[in-house]
Amino acid sequence: MPKLILIRHGQSEWNLADRFTGWWDVDVTEKGAEEAREAGRLLQAKGVLPTLAFTSLQTRAIKTLHLALEFCGRLWIPETKDWRLNERHYGGLTGLNKQETRDKHGDEQVLVWRRSFDTPPPPLAPGSEFDLSADPRYAGIAIPDTESLKLTIERVLPYWESTILPQLAKGETVIVSAHGNSLRALVKHLSGISDADITGLEIPTGQPIVYDFDQAMVPGERYYLKDA
Amino acid sequence: MPKLILIRHGQSEWNLADRFTGWWDVDVTEKGAEEAREAGRLLQAKGVLPTLAFTSLQTRAIKTLHLALEFCGRLWIPETKDWRLNERHYGGLTGLNKQETRDKHGDEQVLVWRRSFDTPPPPLAPGSEFDLSADPRYAGIAIPDTESLKLTIERVLPYWESTILPQLAKGETVIVSAHGNSLRALVKHLSGISDADITGLEIPTGQPIVYDFDQAMVPGERYYLKDA
Repeated sequence: MPKLILIRHGQSEWNLADRFTGWWDVDVTEKGAEEAREAGRLLQAKGVLPTLAFTSLQTRAIKTLHLALEFCGRLWIPETKDWRLNERHYGGLTGLNKQETRDKHGDEQVLVWRRSFDTPPPPLAPGSEFDLSADPRYAGIAIPDTESLKLTIERVLPYWESTILPQLAKGETVIVSAHGNSLRALVKHLSGISDADITGLEIPTGQPIVYDFDQAMVPGERYYLKDA
Repeated sequence: MPKLILIRHGQSEWNLADRFTGWWDVDVTEKGAEEAREAGRLLQAKGVLPTLAFTSLQTRAIKTLHLALEFCGRLWIPETKDWRLNERHYGGLTGLNKQETRDKHGDEQVLVWRRSFDTPPPPLAPGSEFDLSADPRYAGIAIPDTESLKLTIERVLPYWESTILPQLAKGETVIVSAHGNSLRALVKHLSGISDADITGLEIPTGQPIVYDFDQAMVPGERYYLKDA
């Protein structure tokens, strides 16, 4: 039966520095790389072996995928990278650490941006050091200047429907290596979580989350592989 | 203008042990991984930046690709893996080190197998520990039981013509991370090397080889990036 494995990238340099990252391309830390290897060992040990992989255009998700695949002996499976699996774009918050953001905008406003479903942070200023308009990886893509979780979902779900779900329906065991918010988009859809509740759902780094699908392509309860 | 970068995987565990490897899936050594990183740094330094990647189904070529792409900042480009870029299948020689092979078959015969264009080694015995028929990566593929260089060329070139060349013709900068003999197949074709001469052409590990193509898709002289 079709099986979906979701994995959030291992700890990144800016997870560690407590900075809003979004579309900025930071690497995983050595701890993050080890989380990814451990995820691969777990997939191997449980016999949950992906046959097809999807990831974002961001280094931390791609490297997490490659390490997880290497350590479950599946480095050879096809992989597709797409910007629609990128992290939520944090707009003008990009690069700020959480304390700087509170100092600049106040605790209450920061909580709104972090926990609101549909309020995007202020847009990234043009010419900001975090402006990605000259990055060749996004050539031809309308790079957002900020995103709410709602806006993130609005680009993740069409990709899910058009590209990932049809592969699952063929019986593939699909692994998606992505980010806190692009994975929230999928979990919200698959587990039927409300707008109010989804913003508080934490997706831990480097922990494979699994959905088993039935023949009608209805997903069962999600579970962490380590609890199986 | 279109540009083709060929890279042979960095030193593998069995390059180091002087064993015939072929389709057996061995890893790169730490030296091999560093050769791949160095290739990536060189691509970055020279501004030769791939936009599209092809590799085999073998770990040593895939990891070499990933490290080279990471170190030139191009981990996000699309990549396609195909068995037709695999190393030549060494048949019954698989797993033997060069001295064992000479002891078993005689110096003269070994030289014929290594240097002949169209004499394949004896086939891999069914049930051999190196039999790959149960490996899921080759499901649906008629795994050869041995290959000459000629037979290797006969599966590499159709893939080149059907899949790689059309992408180059669109103006892509293509990187192919592969193996001594699958790369010999491409170099023979692109540089017009004779059957007699190609078997003696050494492709060094981890050294990017570049071809520039003109508008009629005629390749120029090949060059090593470090000499450019």
